[in-house]
Amino acid sequence: MEQKTKINAADATQDLLITREFDLPVELLFKAHADPEIITQWMGTKILKFESKKHGSYEIETSDPKGNVAFRANGVIHEFIANKKIIRTFEMEGAPFGVQLEIYEFEKLTDDTSKLTMHVIYESVAQRDQVLKLPFAYGLNMAHNRIQEILSKLK
Amino acid sequence: MEQKTKINAADATQDLLITREFDLPVELLFKAHADPEIITQWMGTKILKFESKKHGSYEIETSDPKGNVAFRANGVIHEFIANKKIIRTFEMEGAPFGVQLEIYEFEKLTDDTSKLTMHVIYESVAQRDQVLKLPFAYGLNMAHNRIQEILSKLK
Repeated sequence: MEQKTKINAADATQDLLITREFDLPVELLFKAHADPEIITQWMGTKILKFESKKHGSYEIETSDPKGNVAFRANGVIHEFIANKKIIRTFEMEGAPFGVQLEIYEFEKLTDDTSKLTMHVIYESVAQRDQVLKLPFAYGLNMAHNRIQEILSKLK
Repeated sequence: MEQKTKINAADATQDLLITREFDLPVELLFKAHADPEIITQWMGTKILKFESKKHGSYEIETSDPKGNVAFRANGVIHEFIANKKIIRTFEMEGAPFGVQLEIYEFEKLTDDTSKLTMHVIYESVAQRDQVLKLPFAYGLNMAHNRIQEILSKLK
């Protein structure tokens, strides 16, 4: 089945352009990326810190069933404009992918539909290509499906 | 005269690799990038905020002789490891250069010499090339000369 989240990785560049349309008002799509309570639901992570504001920062982690930390990430929020834009850094700790600059743009299509554009910039072409070897497209599409599902209940 | 600050801009990439060696202990070179009092001296800017720590942020500006703001920039600090590394974002406000991810590495060469490596990553090749049309290399070399001069007095 075709994935709804589209990932464009041009040859020999160090960035990705990702787009997805949602059957959600832009306000709910934005909320899915700004409200710690909702982020924890679709990402399945524990939120250690999530300051949704310009010059804020965040830390998230997941644990395995035995309580050991399986995944930990953190970053800083450079820009935060409600229902329009978030610019932040993202780093998966203990992983070889470096620090990413992520630009999220939220766009109203109709009253009930909206579009997310993510521009993700890596430190190098090699790091980006390393990420693409993971089931990254599959995982992100699944995460976006969960956003659609969880936020639909809030409509 | 050859500039001491070297800028490597590979074709069709969206980043710059900048290196400079200083006749300064690595601790003083780092201090030049972390201490607001010293930054204000070599950058010639007013510091509105400068939280030199992981997940901190900063805002700087300069005014013309009439008191109008001539330049304003801000960013967030993703990583801050004393005498080793700073990873931050940088945005010149009202300019078409977007948000940059900047990775500063500080390396001890001898007790009295050190090396700065700056990896600056732009949102696009076009934005990077736009920056290179400015007297960027000249300005950065001058700024680094001021670091050498000002910090030498603290040795």
